[in-house]
Amino acid sequence: MSIQYTPIGTVRSPFETPDAVGHDPDAEGAIVLDDTYAAGLDGLTGFSHVVILADLDQSETSSLIAQPPHADDVEVGVFATRSPHRPNGIAETVAEIRARDGATLSVRGIDLVDGTPVLDLKPYVPRVAPADVETGWVTETT
Amino acid sequence: MSIQYTPIGTVRSPFETPDAVGHDPDAEGAIVLDDTYAAGLDGLTGFSHVVILADLDQSETSSLIAQPPHADDVEVGVFATRSPHRPNGIAETVAEIRARDGATLSVRGIDLVDGTPVLDLKPYVPRVAPADVETGWVTETT
Repeated sequence: MSIQYTPIGTVRSPFETPDAVGHDPDAEGAIVLDDTYAAGLDGLTGFSHVVILADLDQSETSSLIAQPPHADDVEVGVFATRSPHRPNGIAETVAEIRARDGATLSVRGIDLVDGTPVLDLKPYVPRVAPADVETGWVTETT
Repeated sequence: MSIQYTPIGTVRSPFETPDAVGHDPDAEGAIVLDDTYAAGLDGLTGFSHVVILADLDQSETSSLIAQPPHADDVEVGVFATRSPHRPNGIAETVAEIRARDGATLSVRGIDLVDGTPVLDLKPYVPRVAPADVETGWVTETT
């Protein structure tokens, strides 16, 4: 059984390849929706940040084991990482909202490759009290 | 252009219909992956919470305008909400990790219907300092 989605728009970012992504945590870019979806953005600029779901179309491999960044001697399951090389290559990332003009949402802190197909946008609302969060290997290696 | 994904597993929860979801913020349930993906869970229990991406297969309608919960007189764009009635019905939700046994991850605070197809799991890591977050209509209506 497979599930089909149709992209609603495209990422614009300074990153032309996956290797370039993340080298600028303040990278400015935009989510350019197809015009038909413009009305769906109403009210989103009342939030400071947006959750972006996007298709990692530049990732052509998948593995169940991944190496966390900056941790060469550690291997964990892929679902314990944000590795792009996963069974379903869906990115879930957060960016700061700068402005909205029609079907275009300007953002800061984008970490997706230019041209990435966008599947969905949602408002970012923290859902766990910071004191209740534990972050596994992230804590250990950073 | 459409993008295809194959579910990696299924949600088990006490909620048999969409209307029942959310009435128990401490609801216990599980993510039951297909056995072939079990190794992908290694290391995930080092984190306190998991991000679940799932296909909202019980939602058969889509609208660009949505009403926030508990706000009958407010209408906003669907991308400013977590409404299940959206162009691509992908849920992005967070649950507390209780235990892992093989390909099964037991969780608390699940807000998905029993039987929902799971697309991806990722570790929950807060990515925005709480003081920097603004939450639009959520602040105004709760």
